[in-house]
Amino acid sequence: MLSEQVGRVLEELQRREIEKVYLVACGGSSALMYASKYALDREAKRIDSDLYSSNEFVYRNPARLGEKSLVILCSHYGKTSETVEAARHARKKGAMTVSLTNEADSPLAHASEFVIVYEEGKEHPFLNDPHAIMYELVFGLLHIQEGNRKFDTLIRSLAELRPVLEKAKEQARAAAKDFGRTFREANIIYTMGSGANYGIAYWFAICILMEMQWIHSHAIHAGEYFHGPFEILEKDVPIIQLLGLDETRPVEKRSLAFSQKYGENIIVVDANDVDWGQIDESVRGYLAPIVLQRVLRVYAEELAEARQHPLSTRRYMWKVPY
Amino acid sequence: MLSEQVGRVLEELQRREIEKVYLVACGGSSALMYASKYALDREAKRIDSDLYSSNEFVYRNPARLGEKSLVILCSHYGKTSETVEAARHARKKGAMTVSLTNEADSPLAHASEFVIVYEEGKEHPFLNDPHAIMYELVFGLLHIQEGNRKFDTLIRSLAELRPVLEKAKEQARAAAKDFGRTFREANIIYTMGSGANYGIAYWFAICILMEMQWIHSHAIHAGEYFHGPFEILEKDVPIIQLLGLDETRPVEKRSLAFSQKYGENIIVVDANDVDWGQIDESVRGYLAPIVLQRVLRVYAEELAEARQHPLSTRRYMWKVPY
Repeated sequence: MLSEQVGRVLEELQRREIEKVYLVACGGSSALMYASKYALDREAKRIDSDLYSSNEFVYRNPARLGEKSLVILCSHYGKTSETVEAARHARKKGAMTVSLTNEADSPLAHASEFVIVYEEGKEHPFLNDPHAIMYELVFGLLHIQEGNRKFDTLIRSLAELRPVLEKAKEQARAAAKDFGRTFREANIIYTMGSGANYGIAYWFAICILMEMQWIHSHAIHAGEYFHGPFEILEKDVPIIQLLGLDETRPVEKRSLAFSQKYGENIIVVDANDVDWGQIDESVRGYLAPIVLQRVLRVYAEELAEARQHPLSTRRYMWKVPY
Repeated sequence: MLSEQVGRVLEELQRREIEKVYLVACGGSSALMYASKYALDREAKRIDSDLYSSNEFVYRNPARLGEKSLVILCSHYGKTSETVEAARHARKKGAMTVSLTNEADSPLAHASEFVIVYEEGKEHPFLNDPHAIMYELVFGLLHIQEGNRKFDTLIRSLAELRPVLEKAKEQARAAAKDFGRTFREANIIYTMGSGANYGIAYWFAICILMEMQWIHSHAIHAGEYFHGPFEILEKDVPIIQLLGLDETRPVEKRSLAFSQKYGENIIVVDANDVDWGQIDESVRGYLAPIVLQRVLRVYAEELAEARQHPLSTRRYMWKVPY
């Protein structure tokens, strides 16, 4: 059921001992890897992992990077220069490199030992989306090298995810329209999450709000909230609180309870409101970030519409040198 | 030269094999640990490490946490309930726990196997400050278990750091006053850094600006800047750019160059402007965060003064249940 490209990587992982996984990308491509770091932390008995922005990875140059490392990289157009450089750096150090990209003929594809070309369309089964591929690789590795038993359930659940996502998006439309109308004049909107979902909070803050809407933002970790950030909460401060289904849900529920007590502009996006159908309960926590991301994309569309500020508008990106 | 309490931990590390270090705390206490994660990544050939907010650590419950883990925790008053719970959780899993606190008779001190009571005063040699103790533990571990050779140089340099810090603070006063006057009406101030310094950018954003000044903020990673956040840069947006002395300085210089080209409110705090005296060049990158933190504390004082908003003002912290 998995693609030939993913299959080739898993085959290589039968032969090659991995001690450490590095998840390396920038911005939105990095954000989609956070859930895999969570999964590795929860599941891996021996294999260690770290997540870095590509430039940080190259300059930090971890001493542990070497032949027993698996470096997974991602760039949509495959042209992100920092990520291309990271792939080259990792190969030079003898690491196994696997890149995810939408462009088969791109610098990142050429710089990496293995390439997986993903799609982000409507395809069903949902196995060739970058979030899905990340889990196929990570759980594939854990299955092969540590005998982790969640692999089959996870792949089966990913394969069935498309209708869940479509229904969740449909369901979210009305609330998203309301969000767009209510916050079209907002100067700042915070996002909050924890565990497997933090990356989605980060993505919405930096890619949607800051990049595509020019609205100030910051993805606050729900557990860190009470150790500084919560002091900025006034009645009118908008906070989007994500509620996922992983083990850290109590952390998110706690920050939400506080925000709702003292704030009046708290938006809740709860993965539990979704019709999960036949998806196995044991892996819903890992899949929740994918659902939350699709739902938040609807929020992004409605915000852009209400503000008459298309999501494609840029000041600097791809326009000026940087 | 090291305290008896640090000595006892290092003695235990002669006997106990460590595979993984967990750095666990909340807010400002967590922020001061980021530099140690950087040092571990740069220096450790075998030992892995991760940094978590305390609640995230407890609920995430990493599968690798066990008898070969060293968990370093920190809480100033030793009462942070999430961190106390984290210490208990780690001990239950058989890990070696070491807590840093200002209060010898506190719940955290009682919950941990080893306790190091730090001071934050004017003491010279500068060896009993929490930042210093973090490095004593981390480089002590690397020295004992991996034969890392920077330990002696680092301890000698830490011991001599006090005059460097005092001079840096004195030198910063005029610029800090100017900063306070210029930005006393600011609604949002971003901070930016990378590598060993990112934790200081994070601390200034969440503990000083958000918590103590009720100013919106977000610590942007200098490498991530170009992948979303930079789109919010307009002429009047204030950004504090840290420049450290570690390997990632080019990342920070790149974000600064862009900000200075399109922004007019860019504040630079450069560890290179400091008189480092006899401090060995090979460890200045690791010590730069400590210097930057002391300098930014002066900025915090002057901002509070200019705004007539004392750093001790709180809306919620220690006042309402959360």
